[in-house]
Amino acid sequence: MIIASAPTTMRAAVLYGPGDLRVVDRPVPRPGPEDVLVRVEMCGACGTDLKIVDGHFPQTPPFGEFTPGHEWTGVVVETGSTVDEFQPGDRVCIEAHRGCGRCANCLVGRYTACLNYGNPAKGHRASGMTANGGFAEYVVHHVSALYHLPAELSAEDAVLITTAGTGLYGLDVAGGYIVGQDVAIFGPGPVGLMTAQVCRAMGAARVILVGTRPSRLELGAKLGVRHTINSSEVDPVRAVLELTGEQGVDLAIEASGGLGTPQQCAEVTKRGGKILFVAFYRDSVQLDLSAVVRKDITMYTSRGEGRNNVQRAVALAASGQLRGKELVTHRFPLDQIAEAFRVMREREGDPVKVVVVP
Amino acid sequence: MIIASAPTTMRAAVLYGPGDLRVVDRPVPRPGPEDVLVRVEMCGACGTDLKIVDGHFPQTPPFGEFTPGHEWTGVVVETGSTVDEFQPGDRVCIEAHRGCGRCANCLVGRYTACLNYGNPAKGHRASGMTANGGFAEYVVHHVSALYHLPAELSAEDAVLITTAGTGLYGLDVAGGYIVGQDVAIFGPGPVGLMTAQVCRAMGAARVILVGTRPSRLELGAKLGVRHTINSSEVDPVRAVLELTGEQGVDLAIEASGGLGTPQQCAEVTKRGGKILFVAFYRDSVQLDLSAVVRKDITMYTSRGEGRNNVQRAVALAASGQLRGKELVTHRFPLDQIAEAFRVMREREGDPVKVVVVP
Amino acid sequence: MIIASAPTTMRAAVLYGPGDLRVVDRPVPRPGPEDVLVRVEMCGACGTDLKIVDGHFPQTPPFGEFTPGHEWTGVVVETGSTVDEFQPGDRVCIEAHRGCGRCANCLVGRYTACLNYGNPAKGHRASGMTANGGFAEYVVHHVSALYHLPAELSAEDAVLITTAGTGLYGLDVAGGYIVGQDVAIFGPGPVGLMTAQVCRAMGAARVILVGTRPSRLELGAKLGVRHTINSSEVDPVRAVLELTGEQGVDLAIEASGGLGTPQQCAEVTKRGGKILFVAFYRDSVQLDLSAVVRKDITMYTSRGEGRNNVQRAVALAASGQLRGKELVTHRFPLDQIAEAFRVMREREGDPVKVVVVP
Amino acid sequence: MIIASAPTTMRAAVLYGPGDLRVVDRPVPRPGPEDVLVRVEMCGACGTDLKIVDGHFPQTPPFGEFTPGHEWTGVVVETGSTVDEFQPGDRVCIEAHRGCGRCANCLVGRYTACLNYGNPAKGHRASGMTANGGFAEYVVHHVSALYHLPAELSAEDAVLITTAGTGLYGLDVAGGYIVGQDVAIFGPGPVGLMTAQVCRAMGAARVILVGTRPSRLELGAKLGVRHTINSSEVDPVRAVLELTGEQGVDLAIEASGGLGTPQQCAEVTKRGGKILFVAFYRDSVQLDLSAVVRKDITMYTSRGEGRNNVQRAVALAASGQLRGKELVTHRFPLDQIAEAFRVMREREGDPVKVVVVP
Repeated sequence: MIIASAPTTMRAAVLYGPGDLRVVDRPVPRPGPEDVLVRVEMCGACGTDLKIVDGHFPQTPPFGEFTPGHEWTGVVVETGSTVDEFQPGDRVCIEAHRGCGRCANCLVGRYTACLNYGNPAKGHRASGMTANGGFAEYVVHHVSALYHLPAELSAEDAVLITTAGTGLYGLDVAGGYIVGQDVAIFGPGPVGLMTAQVCRAMGAARVILVGTRPSRLELGAKLGVRHTINSSEVDPVRAVLELTGEQGVDLAIEASGGLGTPQQCAEVTKRGGKILFVAFYRDSVQLDLSAVVRKDITMYTSRGEGRNNVQRAVALAASGQLRGKELVTHRFPLDQIAEAFRVMREREGDPVKVVVVP
Repeated sequence: MIIASAPTTMRAAVLYGPGDLRVVDRPVPRPGPEDVLVRVEMCGACGTDLKIVDGHFPQTPPFGEFTPGHEWTGVVVETGSTVDEFQPGDRVCIEAHRGCGRCANCLVGRYTACLNYGNPAKGHRASGMTANGGFAEYVVHHVSALYHLPAELSAEDAVLITTAGTGLYGLDVAGGYIVGQDVAIFGPGPVGLMTAQVCRAMGAARVILVGTRPSRLELGAKLGVRHTINSSEVDPVRAVLELTGEQGVDLAIEASGGLGTPQQCAEVTKRGGKILFVAFYRDSVQLDLSAVVRKDITMYTSRGEGRNNVQRAVALAASGQLRGKELVTHRFPLDQIAEAFRVMREREGDPVKVVVVP
Repeated sequence: MIIASAPTTMRAAVLYGPGDLRVVDRPVPRPGPEDVLVRVEMCGACGTDLKIVDGHFPQTPPFGEFTPGHEWTGVVVETGSTVDEFQPGDRVCIEAHRGCGRCANCLVGRYTACLNYGNPAKGHRASGMTANGGFAEYVVHHVSALYHLPAELSAEDAVLITTAGTGLYGLDVAGGYIVGQDVAIFGPGPVGLMTAQVCRAMGAARVILVGTRPSRLELGAKLGVRHTINSSEVDPVRAVLELTGEQGVDLAIEASGGLGTPQQCAEVTKRGGKILFVAFYRDSVQLDLSAVVRKDITMYTSRGEGRNNVQRAVALAASGQLRGKELVTHRFPLDQIAEAFRVMREREGDPVKVVVVP
Repeated sequence: MIIASAPTTMRAAVLYGPGDLRVVDRPVPRPGPEDVLVRVEMCGACGTDLKIVDGHFPQTPPFGEFTPGHEWTGVVVETGSTVDEFQPGDRVCIEAHRGCGRCANCLVGRYTACLNYGNPAKGHRASGMTANGGFAEYVVHHVSALYHLPAELSAEDAVLITTAGTGLYGLDVAGGYIVGQDVAIFGPGPVGLMTAQVCRAMGAARVILVGTRPSRLELGAKLGVRHTINSSEVDPVRAVLELTGEQGVDLAIEASGGLGTPQQCAEVTKRGGKILFVAFYRDSVQLDLSAVVRKDITMYTSRGEGRNNVQRAVALAASGQLRGKELVTHRFPLDQIAEAFRVMREREGDPVKVVVVP
């Protein structure tokens, strides 16, 4: 099924070297039997993209060939020969990861930990990380990593649905039953802000957002978070303990990547509680592991948006409980993608989510 | 700590024989070291109470001694010697079950399946079932089975919080991670209506309520359930499949006790889905077990409000997501408790929740 | 990589109608990019094969085209273009199911409940059920459904490893932590006998095997089962309760398919315990569901050998804790496959596992 | 029920100050209604006891009053008024922890994380830690923390069953389904050696024991561990990866308390795998948390012998799969307990388990 308007060439941002992202002409990719070709409507840029563009991300394709971008949304243009899940014209949002489907981890549903990570010959693809992504006019992805986007959701919402999928997957890995429980979230970036909304929608009692930038904490409050703590002004450990009657939270979510926050998570988590790590760190962290053991805390980790959680995020967003639009502070046309990354890197104008519109 | 007003005698409903519930004078009970004495503000009557009053419930205390009532709320009057979790004057709601705390099941947190069920000498008590309950002016309960009731919640809410705890415990047993999933609930009685609200508060996508009485389905709709199915008018299996694009629901909850509904649950549940049974049946049920096996369905069961889920229900109610008041259709003073049971038994005036006010 | 000896035609049993299984010449199948071509060394016949041959199994390919057989083992002859997990000459055993890898169930690792079950265009295959199987000289299967077979294991062991995978998958679904617990297994057929060995190897305390045929119970005893109960001679419910001090077992496994055994399972399972159903029934079953609810029992089901459990079975067999050879009572050359099925159907010579050697 | 021979005074080791353990006369304790009085047959000393005796353990009773010892076994002498689970003359082994049975953690079965830890008024007791323990002729414990000891097991076995309960609880917390999986255990002390046996009994594929002392690794081998690695001689990370085909283990268990081993655990664990921490550390640890997140590893912790796992350990020992006797290298009469601790502290004669016989 080919839509009349599918051209043969397109504009795409291609990485030519560390920091050297150029918008050039490229052939429009063709979908394989299980693939879908999508015309990109919008693509978000995230912290991982900074690492990718700087050449610090493992297993990306060679310079001169690779288009990053893993938070994209768009309209189906053409479907592979076996695909009937989507039709041309359908709006979609995505999860980045498609596992190989044949390793021991994929078989048990843990495809973000695919043992053939970065091996396209065996079917693995992480869109915008190990395969060409969404900073382009067109992109191909595996049918299993696409989700129908309801009409009531905007492209901005769709971009942030991928982000919310990360939080949901982490909550899934950590058990998922947080109704009536207290949760503290460290790091009010896009992941933290979407995860805070998710926790509220899952019936958490207290949702506590900890960060350093007032603008982001205010955004959290605007999105429905009742308790925000500025850790530049007060000791966040003390503040969380006070809020929870000195018992601590049932679940602490570390989404900041700060070297000191894992230890703070350990201190604010109650006996028998949980910590979820969904961040990366520039160095080793220091942790009072004895205290964690003494408190019988389980520490979960997750990356990406596994186990079908983007579908759950779509449902939440469709019901109005997950808002992405408010997070989009900056938008750039594709030709100005270099400027978009500069703004993000230099935090100019306090960006939360920067998006690119091809 | 004894509040000045604690009298020595009280009015209490005592079961003298099948159907023979009399309101008589009784000594006010005294709390043991781990107990709390509560002045009852309100006590709900539920289907199980009908069985208890009719003498069909196993392990109740002897006729002439026993006061039923397991959905009560009130104000703390006196606390046992080791209790500092509550103070006289505190408002409380309850869960019925206190396990022995020493059997193999209690040790792993499954106290509603206590192996010393009905053995008070070893510490087991189910308030209003195996120990004196709340159809009285005063009642004693174990400290672990009481929960603080916030000021913003009414006595009616509190009575239904116990009911909601049943639904929450079932959801807990069944995994608890229903965000973005479809749920069908059979039986819009108090358990079904409270559980439907809980599912919505946990972020379920579609919550579908199936029943036969229009008044109850309308009440469900008023409480926020978007999809109601009258199974007297349409085939509920067909209707649920149509609502879910022929895939079926992720979770079916059987709260009706109808002999035919377990099979309907099997038919509306999707491959790899779950069924939760929180009802009792007057006879054996007929089930196409092969179909259940072929669809890889897991069948959970639960009774009562275990694993601390009443605490979760209190948090949900406090945030306004769980409304009990709307379910209370009839109220009677304690002296008219026999009339309350007659109304309930004969379904006079279409009662949902009948409460007694001592 | 093609081994010199791969011919172009082969002998294969093809189903031409209900009960009409003929051995004919067929082209040797060619592996796709993710497939492996295997020369079959041995293929077991199981109860499901009887249903398949009789034409009672849903979603089999058309008469005149289809070769059954899903318990096969053999030697790799040729590998698809993307396969480096296996080399020609490798010995392999299998699991039957290969999910589509793209539906909501496959994504979460539940590929035996694939929503595209029986849809080969989308990648689903159940070898010998919805795709050609092992009653032939050669067979093709997806790389993800093959497992390396260590040299110390015989073809007979390999055939029964697939069977053991069924039991292990069921135990996995049911939680898997049975060390020090009591287990009752109803039905000493191949699934029951392999599962009993598995339970022992996982550290179960008492493993109790319940059946009607003395020869099979004796085989169980020979394989290490300490407690066997002949339910033709004694009431099995009574016997299990006596063995377990009247408490019942922690886990009952129903592998018999008898219409009355689900109820017996409910009666022998202790409060808070589990039942696992791994059988199919010729009709609806009657179950005292109230008793199951009252005892807080969870009922698990599983079919096939999902979630990578055949790998676990291989490891157990390699360590000598899982013996398949003893179960093989009858062997037939491929040309006598009709006779093999007659013997199995008529239970001539009390067969446990009948195998076919191409 | 009082046995004739119960005296009124006994010899007991009492802690008078850091390192000052004296054997003095004390009244024989009397059991409360839910307690059991036991004549101690043997009591093991463990690493935690060193910290207790040195005064570094939180929440111990005051100097001059407190008797340590939490790995004891003996014979029932007298039972509390509600106890019928045991009779005088019964042999028992123990778990140390008795939770309060009323806090939010005890209610869900996590009593080793009791929120009233160290509060005897509310019912919490950790024998030999927050309540008087087994370095005495008699000791009282709660009925829920005692287990029947079969005749075929020796006192030495019984002492080590408590230790094995620690490993089993950790495995329980970490999911418990390790059949056919690879496990690496760091630290061949008593916990590591018992846990290695447990893993074998649960059907693990490769059990790999990592340590520095050849005598302990040899003991591991004697107890059935097939793979031992001396980390003083080879790089243990490299060695484990080689043993597992460069994939790493499914589960790494950290039982050494070495500051560098948590990082080694992270490096030997495969993608999607698990780490279990059952040790304490003298300082903060350094951990490459990004690598843990990138590999989707879950980190479990546990302390003590919770969730009824001592019962499982008894069953394993009774079947001969768990041997404790071989670990006992030194035994001392109660009067020489100071010498026992000196030997342990100075590692004189390479002690594995030192026991005291009152």
